[in-house]
Amino acid sequence: MTQYKQVIVVRQDLKMGKGKLAVQVAHAAVSSVEQTRKYKPSWYDSWIRENQAKICVKIEDEKKLRLLKGKVDEAGIPNALIEDAGLTQLEPGTTTCLGIGPLPSDIADRYTGDLKLM
Amino acid sequence: MTQYKQVIVVRQDLKMGKGKLAVQVAHAAVSSVEQTRKYKPSWYDSWIRENQAKICVKIEDEKKLRLLKGKVDEAGIPNALIEDAGLTQLEPGTTTCLGIGPLPSDIADRYTGDLKLM
Repeated sequence: MTQYKQVIVVRQDLKMGKGKLAVQVAHAAVSSVEQTRKYKPSWYDSWIRENQAKICVKIEDEKKLRLLKGKVDEAGIPNALIEDAGLTQLEPGTTTCLGIGPLPSDIADRYTGDLKLM
Repeated sequence: MTQYKQVIVVRQDLKMGKGKLAVQVAHAAVSSVEQTRKYKPSWYDSWIRENQAKICVKIEDEKKLRLLKGKVDEAGIPNALIEDAGLTQLEPGTTTCLGIGPLPSDIADRYTGDLKLM
Protein backbone atom coordinates (compact mmCIF):
# COMPACT_ATOMS: atom_id res chain seq x y z
CA MET A 1 0.00 0.00 0.00
CA THR A 2 1.32 3.39 -0.88
CA GLN A 3 1.01 6.27 1.56
CA TYR A 4 0.22 8.79 -1.16
CA LYS A 5 -1.75 8.58 -4.37
CA GLN A 6 -3.41 10.65 -6.99
CA VAL A 7 -7.02 9.87 -7.83
CA ILE A 8 -8.54 10.71 -11.19
CA VAL A 9 -12.32 10.59 -11.27
CA VAL A 10 -13.92 10.11 -14.68
CA ARG A 11 -17.55 10.57 -15.73
CA GLN A 12 -18.87 7.25 -16.85
CA ASP A 13 -21.95 8.71 -18.56
CA LEU A 14 -19.81 10.15 -21.38
CA LYS A 15 -18.95 7.75 -24.13
CA MET A 16 -15.35 8.73 -24.77
CA GLY A 17 -13.07 6.71 -27.01
CA LYS A 18 -9.88 5.24 -25.53
CA GLY A 19 -7.54 7.96 -26.80
CA LYS A 20 -9.91 10.76 -25.85
CA LEU A 21 -10.33 9.35 -22.37
CA ALA A 22 -6.57 8.93 -21.93
CA VAL A 23 -5.89 12.54 -22.90
CA GLN A 24 -8.58 13.84 -20.51
CA VAL A 25 -7.13 11.78 -17.67
CA ALA A 26 -3.64 13.05 -18.53
CA HIS A 27 -4.91 16.67 -18.41
CA ALA A 28 -6.38 16.04 -14.97
CA ALA A 29 -3.23 14.31 -13.72
CA VAL A 30 -0.85 17.04 -14.89
CA SER A 31 -3.02 19.97 -13.73
CA SER A 32 -3.71 18.47 -10.34
CA VAL A 33 -0.02 17.66 -9.82
CA GLU A 34 0.78 21.32 -10.59
CA GLN A 35 -1.79 22.49 -8.03
CA THR A 36 -0.41 20.13 -5.41
CA ARG A 37 3.17 21.15 -6.09
CA LYS A 38 2.17 24.77 -5.43
CA TYR A 39 -0.22 24.43 -2.53
CA LYS A 40 0.77 21.20 -0.76
CA PRO A 41 4.49 20.83 -1.55
CA SER A 42 5.02 18.24 1.21
CA TRP A 43 2.35 15.97 -0.30
CA TYR A 44 3.89 16.45 -3.72
CA ASP A 45 7.42 15.67 -2.48
CA SER A 46 6.32 12.53 -0.63
CA TRP A 47 4.43 11.24 -3.64
CA ILE A 48 7.36 11.92 -5.99
CA ARG A 49 9.70 10.03 -3.64
CA GLU A 50 7.24 7.12 -3.47
CA ASN A 51 6.14 5.52 -6.72
CA GLN A 52 3.76 8.25 -7.94
CA ALA A 53 0.73 5.99 -7.60
CA LYS A 54 -2.30 6.99 -9.66
CA ILE A 55 -5.69 5.40 -9.82
CA CYS A 56 -8.54 6.04 -12.19
CA VAL A 57 -12.08 5.66 -10.84
CA LYS A 58 -15.51 6.33 -12.27
CA ILE A 59 -18.44 8.45 -11.16
CA GLU A 60 -22.03 8.47 -12.38
CA ASP A 61 -22.49 11.93 -13.86
CA GLU A 62 -21.52 15.61 -13.86
CA LYS A 63 -23.69 16.46 -10.85
CA LYS A 64 -21.88 13.93 -8.66
CA LEU A 65 -18.51 14.98 -10.03
CA ARG A 66 -19.17 18.63 -9.12
CA LEU A 67 -20.46 17.64 -5.69
CA LEU A 68 -17.22 15.75 -5.09
CA LYS A 69 -15.20 18.74 -6.25
CA GLY A 70 -17.07 20.93 -3.77
CA LYS A 71 -16.13 18.57 -0.95
CA VAL A 72 -12.44 18.38 -1.77
CA ASP A 73 -12.31 22.17 -2.28
CA GLU A 74 -13.86 22.64 1.15
CA ALA A 75 -11.23 20.33 2.64
CA GLY A 76 -8.43 22.37 1.03
CA ILE A 77 -7.29 19.50 -1.18
CA PRO A 78 -5.62 20.57 -4.45
CA ASN A 79 -7.58 19.36 -7.47
CA ALA A 80 -8.27 20.12 -11.11
CA LEU A 81 -11.60 19.90 -12.93
CA ILE A 82 -11.15 19.33 -16.64
CA GLU A 83 -13.41 20.73 -19.34
CA ASP A 84 -13.01 19.58 -22.88
CA ALA A 85 -12.38 22.19 -25.57
CA GLY A 86 -14.90 20.25 -27.63
CA LEU A 87 -12.98 19.96 -30.87
CA THR A 88 -13.88 16.28 -31.17
CA GLN A 89 -16.50 13.92 -29.78
CA LEU A 90 -17.87 16.20 -27.02
CA GLU A 91 -19.68 19.55 -26.77
CA PRO A 92 -17.36 22.48 -25.93
CA GLY A 93 -17.05 22.97 -22.19
CA THR A 94 -18.10 19.43 -21.28
CA THR A 95 -16.73 18.52 -17.87
CA THR A 96 -14.94 15.19 -18.26
CA CYS A 97 -12.95 14.40 -15.13
CA LEU A 98 -11.46 15.58 -11.85
CA GLY A 99 -7.87 15.11 -10.71
CA ILE A 100 -7.39 15.02 -6.93
CA GLY A 101 -3.98 15.42 -5.31
CA PRO A 102 -1.59 13.52 -4.95
CA LEU A 103 -2.59 13.32 -1.32
CA PRO A 104 -2.30 10.93 1.63
CA SER A 105 -4.11 7.71 0.73
CA ASP A 106 -6.22 7.70 3.89
CA ILE A 107 -7.57 11.17 3.13
CA ALA A 108 -8.18 10.19 -0.50
CA ASP A 109 -10.18 7.18 0.60
CA ARG A 110 -12.51 9.35 2.68
CA TYR A 111 -13.68 11.09 -0.48
CA THR A 112 -13.26 8.51 -3.22
CA GLY A 113 -13.04 5.14 -1.45
CA ASP A 114 -16.57 4.22 -2.55
CA LEU A 115 -15.87 4.76 -6.26
CA LYS A 116 -15.06 1.79 -8.48
CA LEU A 117 -11.85 1.46 -10.45
CA MET A 118 -12.23 2.23 -14.12
CA MET B 1 -2.80 25.27 -34.22
CA THR B 2 -0.87 25.37 -31.01
CA GLN B 3 2.84 26.20 -30.99
CA TYR B 4 3.63 23.66 -28.27
CA LYS B 5 2.28 20.24 -27.49
CA GLN B 6 2.99 17.13 -25.53
CA VAL B 7 2.91 13.83 -27.41
CA ILE B 8 2.21 10.54 -25.67
CA VAL B 9 3.10 7.48 -27.69
CA VAL B 10 1.33 4.25 -26.72
CA ARG B 11 2.13 0.68 -27.74
CA GLN B 12 -0.77 -0.66 -29.70
CA ASP B 13 0.33 -4.30 -29.42
CA LEU B 14 -0.58 -4.42 -25.71
CA LYS B 15 -4.21 -5.04 -24.99
CA MET B 16 -4.74 -2.65 -22.10
CA GLY B 17 -8.17 -1.89 -20.71
CA LYS B 18 -9.44 1.69 -20.78
CA GLY B 19 -8.56 2.51 -17.18
CA LYS B 20 -5.16 0.86 -17.36
CA LEU B 21 -4.33 2.72 -20.54
CA ALA B 22 -5.48 6.04 -19.08
CA VAL B 23 -3.27 5.61 -16.01
CA GLN B 24 -0.22 4.71 -18.13
CA VAL B 25 -0.76 7.76 -20.31
CA ALA B 26 -1.15 9.90 -17.19
CA HIS B 27 2.16 8.55 -15.82
CA ALA B 28 3.88 9.47 -19.08
CA ALA B 29 2.29 12.92 -19.18
CA VAL B 30 3.22 13.82 -15.60
CA SER B 31 6.78 12.43 -15.75
CA SER B 32 7.57 14.04 -19.07
CA VAL B 33 6.18 17.39 -17.90
CA GLU B 34 8.49 17.15 -14.85
CA GLN B 35 11.49 16.46 -17.09
CA THR B 36 10.61 19.36 -19.36
CA ARG B 37 10.08 21.74 -16.45
CA LYS B 38 13.62 20.91 -15.25
CA TYR B 39 15.55 20.72 -18.50
CA LYS B 40 13.63 22.92 -20.96
CA PRO B 41 11.90 25.48 -18.72
CA SER B 42 11.15 27.81 -21.63
CA TRP B 43 9.25 25.06 -23.46
CA TYR B 44 7.39 24.23 -20.27
CA ASP B 45 6.47 27.88 -19.61
CA SER B 46 5.24 28.45 -23.16
CA TRP B 47 3.11 25.31 -23.08
CA ILE B 48 1.61 26.21 -19.69
CA ARG B 49 0.71 29.69 -21.01
CA GLU B 50 -0.87 28.16 -24.10
CA ASN B 51 -3.57 25.52 -23.64
CA GLN B 52 -1.38 22.60 -22.56
CA ALA B 53 -2.20 20.63 -25.70
CA LYS B 54 -1.66 16.89 -25.46
CA ILE B 55 -2.10 14.25 -28.11
CA CYS B 56 -2.07 10.51 -27.77
CA VAL B 57 -0.71 8.49 -30.71
CA LYS B 58 0.02 4.82 -31.26
CA ILE B 59 3.10 2.87 -32.24
CA GLU B 60 3.44 -0.72 -33.40
CA ASP B 61 5.56 -2.36 -30.70
CA GLU B 62 8.26 -2.00 -28.04
CA LYS B 63 11.12 -2.07 -30.53
CA LYS B 64 9.77 0.95 -32.40
CA LEU B 65 8.97 2.73 -29.15
CA ARG B 66 12.56 2.32 -27.93
CA LEU B 67 13.93 3.40 -31.30
CA LEU B 68 11.85 6.57 -31.05
CA LYS B 69 13.08 7.18 -27.50
CA GLY B 70 16.68 6.88 -28.74
CA LYS B 71 16.03 9.54 -31.36
CA VAL B 72 14.43 12.05 -29.01
CA ASP B 73 17.16 11.42 -26.41
CA GLU B 74 19.77 12.13 -29.05
CA ALA B 75 18.01 15.37 -29.92
CA GLY B 76 18.02 16.45 -26.26
CA ILE B 77 14.23 16.40 -25.97
CA PRO B 78 12.89 15.70 -22.45
CA ASN B 79 10.86 12.51 -22.36
CA ALA B 80 9.72 9.73 -20.06
CA LEU B 81 9.48 6.02 -20.83
CA ILE B 82 6.92 4.27 -18.64
CA GLU B 83 7.24 0.73 -17.38
CA ASP B 84 4.33 -0.91 -15.66
CA ALA B 85 4.82 -2.29 -12.16
CA GLY B 86 2.87 -5.29 -13.39
CA LEU B 87 0.39 -5.63 -10.55
CA THR B 88 -2.47 -6.09 -12.98
CA GLN B 89 -2.93 -7.09 -16.61
CA LEU B 90 0.75 -6.84 -17.69
CA GLU B 91 4.06 -8.53 -16.86
CA PRO B 92 6.24 -6.53 -14.43
CA GLY B 93 8.53 -4.13 -16.28
CA THR B 94 6.45 -4.03 -19.44
CA THR B 95 7.15 -0.83 -21.33
CA THR B 96 3.78 0.77 -22.09
CA CYS B 97 4.28 4.29 -23.41
CA LEU B 98 6.56 7.26 -23.94
CA GLY B 99 5.79 10.87 -23.02
CA ILE B 100 7.60 13.48 -25.12
CA GLY B 101 7.87 17.12 -24.08
CA PRO B 102 5.89 19.44 -24.13
CA LEU B 103 7.92 20.79 -27.01
CA PRO B 104 7.51 23.03 -30.06
CA SER B 105 4.94 21.41 -32.37
CA ASP B 106 7.16 21.58 -35.42
CA ILE B 107 9.92 19.65 -33.64
CA ALA B 108 7.38 17.14 -32.32
CA ASP B 109 6.09 16.52 -35.82
CA ARG B 110 9.57 15.62 -37.06
CA TYR B 111 9.61 12.63 -34.72
CA THR B 112 5.95 11.68 -34.33
CA GLY B 113 4.16 13.26 -37.29
CA ASP B 114 3.78 9.90 -38.99
CA LEU B 115 2.07 8.23 -36.04
CA LYS B 116 -1.73 7.93 -36.00
CA LEU B 117 -3.91 9.38 -33.27
CA MET B 118 -5.16 6.85 -30.79
